[in-house]
Amino acid sequence: MVEKYNIRTDLALEEKERFESDQVEVQGVVLEEEYDKEREIRVTTVRIETENGAKTMGKPVGTYLTIEAPNLSSPDEGIHREVSEELAKYLIEVMEKIIPESEHDKEVLVIGLGNRQATPDALGPYVTDNLNVTRHIVKEYGKYAAPEEMNCVVSAIVPGVMAQTGMETAEIIKGVVRETKPDLLIVIDALAARNSRRLNRTIQIADTGINPGSGVGNYRNAITKETIGVPVIAIGVPTVVDAVTIVSDTMENLLSALETSESLKGVGLVLGGYSEAEKYELIKELIAPNLNSMFMTPKDIDETVKRLSYTISEGLNLAFSGQSFE
Amino acid sequence: MVEKYNIRTDLALEEKERFESDQVEVQGVVLEEEYDKEREIRVTTVRIETENGAKTMGKPVGTYLTIEAPNLSSPDEGIHREVSEELAKYLIEVMEKIIPESEHDKEVLVIGLGNRQATPDALGPYVTDNLNVTRHIVKEYGKYAAPEEMNCVVSAIVPGVMAQTGMETAEIIKGVVRETKPDLLIVIDALAARNSRRLNRTIQIADTGINPGSGVGNYRNAITKETIGVPVIAIGVPTVVDAVTIVSDTMENLLSALETSESLKGVGLVLGGYSEAEKYELIKELIAPNLNSMFMTPKDIDETVKRLSYTISEGLNLAFSGQSFE
Amino acid sequence: MVEKYNIRTDLALEEKERFESDQVEVQGVVLEEEYDKEREIRVTTVRIETENGAKTMGKPVGTYLTIEAPNLSSPDEGIHREVSEELAKYLIEVMEKIIPESEHDKEVLVIGLGNRQATPDALGPYVTDNLNVTRHIVKEYGKYAAPEEMNCVVSAIVPGVMAQTGMETAEIIKGVVRETKPDLLIVIDALAARNSRRLNRTIQIADTGINPGSGVGNYRNAITKETIGVPVIAIGVPTVVDAVTIVSDTMENLLSALETSESLKGVGLVLGGYSEAEKYELIKELIAPNLNSMFMTPKDIDETVKRLSYTISEGLNLAFSGQSFE
Amino acid sequence: MVEKYNIRTDLALEEKERFESDQVEVQGVVLEEEYDKEREIRVTTVRIETENGAKTMGKPVGTYLTIEAPNLSSPDEGIHREVSEELAKYLIEVMEKIIPESEHDKEVLVIGLGNRQATPDALGPYVTDNLNVTRHIVKEYGKYAAPEEMNCVVSAIVPGVMAQTGMETAEIIKGVVRETKPDLLIVIDALAARNSRRLNRTIQIADTGINPGSGVGNYRNAITKETIGVPVIAIGVPTVVDAVTIVSDTMENLLSALETSESLKGVGLVLGGYSEAEKYELIKELIAPNLNSMFMTPKDIDETVKRLSYTISEGLNLAFSGQSFE
Repeated sequence: MVEKYNIRTDLALEEKERFESDQVEVQGVVLEEEYDKEREIRVTTVRIETENGAKTMGKPVGTYLTIEAPNLSSPDEGIHREVSEELAKYLIEVMEKIIPESEHDKEVLVIGLGNRQATPDALGPYVTDNLNVTRHIVKEYGKYAAPEEMNCVVSAIVPGVMAQTGMETAEIIKGVVRETKPDLLIVIDALAARNSRRLNRTIQIADTGINPGSGVGNYRNAITKETIGVPVIAIGVPTVVDAVTIVSDTMENLLSALETSESLKGVGLVLGGYSEAEKYELIKELIAPNLNSMFMTPKDIDETVKRLSYTISEGLNLAFSGQSFE
Repeated sequence: MVEKYNIRTDLALEEKERFESDQVEVQGVVLEEEYDKEREIRVTTVRIETENGAKTMGKPVGTYLTIEAPNLSSPDEGIHREVSEELAKYLIEVMEKIIPESEHDKEVLVIGLGNRQATPDALGPYVTDNLNVTRHIVKEYGKYAAPEEMNCVVSAIVPGVMAQTGMETAEIIKGVVRETKPDLLIVIDALAARNSRRLNRTIQIADTGINPGSGVGNYRNAITKETIGVPVIAIGVPTVVDAVTIVSDTMENLLSALETSESLKGVGLVLGGYSEAEKYELIKELIAPNLNSMFMTPKDIDETVKRLSYTISEGLNLAFSGQSFE
Repeated sequence: MVEKYNIRTDLALEEKERFESDQVEVQGVVLEEEYDKEREIRVTTVRIETENGAKTMGKPVGTYLTIEAPNLSSPDEGIHREVSEELAKYLIEVMEKIIPESEHDKEVLVIGLGNRQATPDALGPYVTDNLNVTRHIVKEYGKYAAPEEMNCVVSAIVPGVMAQTGMETAEIIKGVVRETKPDLLIVIDALAARNSRRLNRTIQIADTGINPGSGVGNYRNAITKETIGVPVIAIGVPTVVDAVTIVSDTMENLLSALETSESLKGVGLVLGGYSEAEKYELIKELIAPNLNSMFMTPKDIDETVKRLSYTISEGLNLAFSGQSFE
Repeated sequence: MVEKYNIRTDLALEEKERFESDQVEVQGVVLEEEYDKEREIRVTTVRIETENGAKTMGKPVGTYLTIEAPNLSSPDEGIHREVSEELAKYLIEVMEKIIPESEHDKEVLVIGLGNRQATPDALGPYVTDNLNVTRHIVKEYGKYAAPEEMNCVVSAIVPGVMAQTGMETAEIIKGVVRETKPDLLIVIDALAARNSRRLNRTIQIADTGINPGSGVGNYRNAITKETIGVPVIAIGVPTVVDAVTIVSDTMENLLSALETSESLKGVGLVLGGYSEAEKYELIKELIAPNLNSMFMTPKDIDETVKRLSYTISEGLNLAFSGQSFE
């Protein structure tokens, strides 16, 4: 089984698929799927409902919604607008579940995680660049001074990464939250996928926040309701694949080809005699140790990240203004 | 007297000069000056010692040290190295006064104030880009893992400006300080000068922190020991002059020329009959109202800010490592 | 008369106004104005028709169209879309006049003039960042491979400024034009206005190209059909006012107040006795010499330039695709 | 043999190693090596002397010098200064060979190839940011106006990449060279290595220019003396490994382990019966097709590229000023 090779994905969808491919039903995990054929947008919901399910999936109990659109990595403006609206729709649903009734406007703090200087990790900072931030205006002049109608009061911060700040991102966020007391955190981050075909085509919205080890930059501390004190929605796009993932995936393919291919039947017979553990050892020793500090990313990542960050910030702006959904 | 026209400077030195030009002794304010002729570096210390002095100067009690070097706005590498060392020397002095004996290494949090996207206001963010940040290394592996010998543990953050974050800068800093508990804050900021000849040639080190209304971006809340809870050293370089300042300065010159010039003696006689208040009214109504939201800056500000930020970060790195001063 | 004080504007509209305020008819210069009251968009056309007119105006023979919209400096998305469409409409008109019939698609080279590192001068580079560049696709795969329908083949370059390249911008452009042979050049640049109320609210489209001394960065060589060999359309937005302009304007006001104000009648009598030349000398000696290398710009210039560059690039994209105009 | 799998390296050194590992002497190719043990700097010269050698190596006749220093990817300032000096020394040697005697100062045009927006490809643009550009000063005021002593007149340009400009980089360079007539071109570029251990630790100086298919961005046209008309020195640092390279390398390892490993002897016997061609087919079909548009890069690439670009620009500045070599 693949997880032994330390294969990494930040997408609950891919974690789930892993079991499916092994024909295993995962107890305590529910999968729902909607497909809009015309617009080619697929929305998948993975609901981890029990601690057992959480343990199997390696992700906390909660709801992980994934919007997939193959054209999202292309410059087609139409699909970007549609995905922005889709994102806003689900975001409003999630927000309403998390902070049900409130007399005052919701105060939302958006966190642009990641490293502005490293292109595939710049998604979070770029998203905050295009947000309609309103908190300072509302504090000073009242709600009706904000440039557009809105039902959220919005603030935003780009905390930077540990190599630049010397601080855990969670420390910075905790401090800012204590001081400014938002009702809700929305953290934006670039993710690692397992399947390179998912890169830049997929948006995940999770009501569980960010867990240690996730994100391109690999956070060491959780950013969740438990650690921060307010609910945390995480929005992420996979922009990289860990180098180890791709290499060991391809080697998996090789081994299984050796075992099953007609033309290589002889090898298969021999390898078939080896246990999973023996094969795992074989692969592990062949992977170069310096691969651990590397990631793989598409060559046009600069344009793609710029476009996707705009799509997400538009989705957030729509959701915060409460405009566009009938 | 000029202050009526709402003339603004963030330099204590210029505040003091204002009175000198009026031949007024300021009670409770002490001025010291050192001039290194060979290296053309002038170091001036303005010590505001009493509340009375503070009131007259419009700045809190404390010590304001100014390093002036005419070549600082040029690309001459020699002078930049010398000013970095000078800065480090004074910084160490100030740090030792503020946090006298301590058994553990000093934990310093550097704040890069200002707006990375607006060139004359980008000094603070640029300075943090070149800092040797060590806190995360020391926390993880202990002091001897840091790349160089050091006697400070360094962290850094770029909080952004209110139009981007929706939060007061002071709120963000308070939160981060509460969470990470540094012994000392060093805030870096671009300042407004009154005299355009001082731009990009002057570094001010103040042990009083940042006060409302100062900085190119005009902070609304204080960032001081009183508000944040730890001592705050402010390092600033004037990069802009307020538009109103330059206009009303030139008009002052015009009026006084009218009053004193031989060739315009007749005008002088007439104007001489007007009170200060009448002249002030005259100038005020001539200044266009939209000047208030404008500043003046040199055309080569991009190169100058880049160079100066490097000079300051080198000074900080030297001071934090404790190397270079015998 | 103001021009003596070396007052500078890159807007033909302001050059024309100067004469109007002096009640002078300018021979060989025609002015037309359209005002769309509902959308608050004013379009002014200054047509310099004779060499005499050119001499008086200090600008070459040609058509200078100005789109003014007071809300252009605000974040209102509606007005930005309308101005993009307006810009595209006029751009198509100008392009059709300049390159009338052609069997093949027009090849357009867009030049983003100015300095990406200096915020008020970054308009040109930012505009090219959002252009739909198609030339390489059309060269490789033919016209129908381009992502959208289009009637122009588009290339773009950001040549940088002389302090970064060591070359005149005109040299770089000449070289690239010789090699890639476009039918038309569109140069985008940040301009200097005389009136600070015009900043970031005005777009000028001139069929004359760029002349020495214009632009925030003050080009030394012309970028025109004569020097480059292909027609040049210049699109500019004023983002700065020269420091000298604002100061001497205010002093003009002061002097004329002194001459006319009831309360200062005495001064007026005396000053009235001075010739224009004497008053000019008086002002000149009062303006600080270092003002010459400074400009004045609004404090929110970073957001404004970002927004305006997007508005212009959308206008260009519309015009090049030939879509949106009935 | 590995080259069948379309394995790519821009380093002549790695091309040569490939043959060594196969125990093949390459006719027409000479290798020299110097190792400075104390400073841990290795300088290797690969001299391709004949057309035959060029064909075997897949690189044109010329000299490829490689400076390797394991600490180059670390923040150690000492090693960076030493590599800058080493680079300057070799650069001066190459320049003297290429442009032997000249009465006038050499005019050098530096080209910062690559994409400023994509971190691993930003090396070239970053290097030009720190160059001492002097051509405009010398043209205007003569040689002695330049800020430092120098024996080269320096200009620089960042041409951008095809997706941004719609033009081949070679077209832009040809145009600028024709117009400004430099004696020599120095092109700076990020490269692809085969071995991930070489990333960010190696600088290659080649007197052959840039050939189609090289560079992170994969140039389609050559930038060489033949195509541009003046000699071209190429300076490159490998910052990425092609995804296909790493995957197929690891699979090579797997196959050879299967063939030789004691514990898998059975597999070896079977695989041993397959020809190279059959094994090649096997690997090829297992590599995901979308890997072709991906590269692999270290997670700290942002800091590394920033540091290395500074090291190279310092080397160039030293070489151009003619200072530092006894």
